[in-house]
Amino acid sequence: MSKEYNRVYNFSAGPAVLPEEVLKEAASEMLDYEGSGMSVMEMSHRSKVYDKIIKDAEADLRELMNIPDNYKVLFLQGGASQQFAMIPMNLMKNRKAAYIVTGQWAKKAFQEAKIYGEAVEVASSADKTFSYIPDCSDLPIPEDADYVYICENNTIYGTKFKTLPDTKGHTLVADVSSCFLSEPVDVTKYGVIYGGVQKNVGPAGVVIVIIREDLITEDTLPGTPTMLKYKIHADADSLYNTPPAYGIYICGKVFKWLKKMGGLSAIKESNEKKAKVLYDFLDESALFKGTVRKEDRSLMNVPFVTGSEELDAKFVKEAADAGFVNLKGHRTVGGMRASIYNAMPIEGVEKLVAFMREFEKENG
Amino acid sequence: MSKEYNRVYNFSAGPAVLPEEVLKEAASEMLDYEGSGMSVMEMSHRSKVYDKIIKDAEADLRELMNIPDNYKVLFLQGGASQQFAMIPMNLMKNRKAAYIVTGQWAKKAFQEAKIYGEAVEVASSADKTFSYIPDCSDLPIPEDADYVYICENNTIYGTKFKTLPDTKGHTLVADVSSCFLSEPVDVTKYGVIYGGVQKNVGPAGVVIVIIREDLITEDTLPGTPTMLKYKIHADADSLYNTPPAYGIYICGKVFKWLKKMGGLSAIKESNEKKAKVLYDFLDESALFKGTVRKEDRSLMNVPFVTGSEELDAKFVKEAADAGFVNLKGHRTVGGMRASIYNAMPIEGVEKLVAFMREFEKENG
Repeated sequence: MSKEYNRVYNFSAGPAVLPEEVLKEAASEMLDYEGSGMSVMEMSHRSKVYDKIIKDAEADLRELMNIPDNYKVLFLQGGASQQFAMIPMNLMKNRKAAYIVTGQWAKKAFQEAKIYGEAVEVASSADKTFSYIPDCSDLPIPEDADYVYICENNTIYGTKFKTLPDTKGHTLVADVSSCFLSEPVDVTKYGVIYGGVQKNVGPAGVVIVIIREDLITEDTLPGTPTMLKYKIHADADSLYNTPPAYGIYICGKVFKWLKKMGGLSAIKESNEKKAKVLYDFLDESALFKGTVRKEDRSLMNVPFVTGSEELDAKFVKEAADAGFVNLKGHRTVGGMRASIYNAMPIEGVEKLVAFMREFEKENG
Repeated sequence: MSKEYNRVYNFSAGPAVLPEEVLKEAASEMLDYEGSGMSVMEMSHRSKVYDKIIKDAEADLRELMNIPDNYKVLFLQGGASQQFAMIPMNLMKNRKAAYIVTGQWAKKAFQEAKIYGEAVEVASSADKTFSYIPDCSDLPIPEDADYVYICENNTIYGTKFKTLPDTKGHTLVADVSSCFLSEPVDVTKYGVIYGGVQKNVGPAGVVIVIIREDLITEDTLPGTPTMLKYKIHADADSLYNTPPAYGIYICGKVFKWLKKMGGLSAIKESNEKKAKVLYDFLDESALFKGTVRKEDRSLMNVPFVTGSEELDAKFVKEAADAGFVNLKGHRTVGGMRASIYNAMPIEGVEKLVAFMREFEKENG
């Protein structure tokens, strides 16, 4: 907790904790961004000063993720939920796609795709409440499938693909909302990587789409709204209409913070260290138990239970009173969940574990 | 210009000037909103503290606009451009609609509607570069038209409907982006009122839709994406997915500021006073001329020219150097445009006119 502001340790799954120095900078620039005499909220998106903000954001993201030149970076609106429609509307040339269903968000994407063509569920972990990632080494992917879809990190269940599926030559499309920029990624393995920024990158209202250029075509499904065509946004460098300008500005600051922290390799190391503190404790605790198969554990979202709903509720309440907030699990699964995104300092995790130890002593 | 921050007078058409006290409050709450220990950017949109923010915003907007109970208020993403598709996808039951084309944005909405059905242009002011509002007292509206569409204030051209069209009993749909909350409005005359907030209400990335309940149905056009259905958002009180939470928070602050200013009648009076200062000068000036038919002049966007492109450019440059920024007209029409939204103080307009007088003396 900062001395000046009395900040809590915020384990929210999203919108989620942002780097304190990013927020401080944003506050200090609120009435006058770099001598412009205006807030970034008040600027024309076609002004020189804003042009630099969005161009710098894209350049920094490209550097962080090592995005090849034949991929476009788009800053869009509507969240992941809108991508669930944009992906089939833009990519389903054969009206067929393969979906791997590892949780609620993958399922929603799968159901939305059915509006537009034949969406085939080629794997699922629904049989064990999505507590693991299915074996994706030899899936029955239809030969004429336009793409294979995954949700790479499952926020609600705390699972993550450690190995990407064998798509058998098909285009891979991944929703990375809850693991965005948490570790290095080989962009060339994907056709589309996209994520809502409100978990690890910025404020809700921006979704970033990284898409290989050959997938951006005028040949979208009949009836596709103009605003849902990747080509419209790609041709206009995300300025077809007014973008969510302030959100992009905050994302840009987070990118600069990540670069200062040493980039994605360094942040991965930090994330692994943080997650180990929590998982090691869960593995030794007699009271608290992780709910995910060990080899599929997410670095970002750590769900756990005591086995008693009453005790879960007591823990969530007492933790909140002690300054560890938003530890309640998703309303569809219950229990607890600690989301430990990039901006959560290791002290936050260490102090949480100390608090859990104490709670265990008193209630175990 | 504030002494602390060296603010400019910002005549941008959008994103545009916001009330200074709103920005100051936002800055002061950036690291800790009302003792929550979090920024509003970092909060779960399903938390109690955020719930109050969005509910208060809606209640204040309802109070300001006197919105009847049988209208829903939706906070959505995608800007007006996405509404161009959402409106026909949700409202075109007979696949027919009447459009009044008074500028580029109305035209874009008209063209988008053609994707989904028979959009009929029932009036246009294209013959005189959209410098007036056509007579809409007896339009050839098809009997089975699902709605009549207008862009009520035309940002680029500086025109405004002073009388709503006679829709002959059809539903009126209005894009009010650039006159949103600039004066009282009789909501009952409309089926749908919507506006991007980035001109008069808040930061880009939020569009507010006020829609009569009977127009919200499950009967949308085939292939309508889930995120583009009004019913989905109405049933979830704008929380179907993560909303543009920070933008809504700023809008809420602007609503409170408007209430403190005395509401929409008071702000209309202030806007009329401001506009009069500028229009009176344009009417007496030998150098500067307004471009809009007098009876159709907007209170918000005031375009003018000198008659010489060179002199226009010189004026825009010298004005910017003197702290009057973003006075260049839209790239499609040239000349100058002063957008004088709610948050522009009258001193800004008075000082601009004094500057114009001086410029005229030197260059007239």
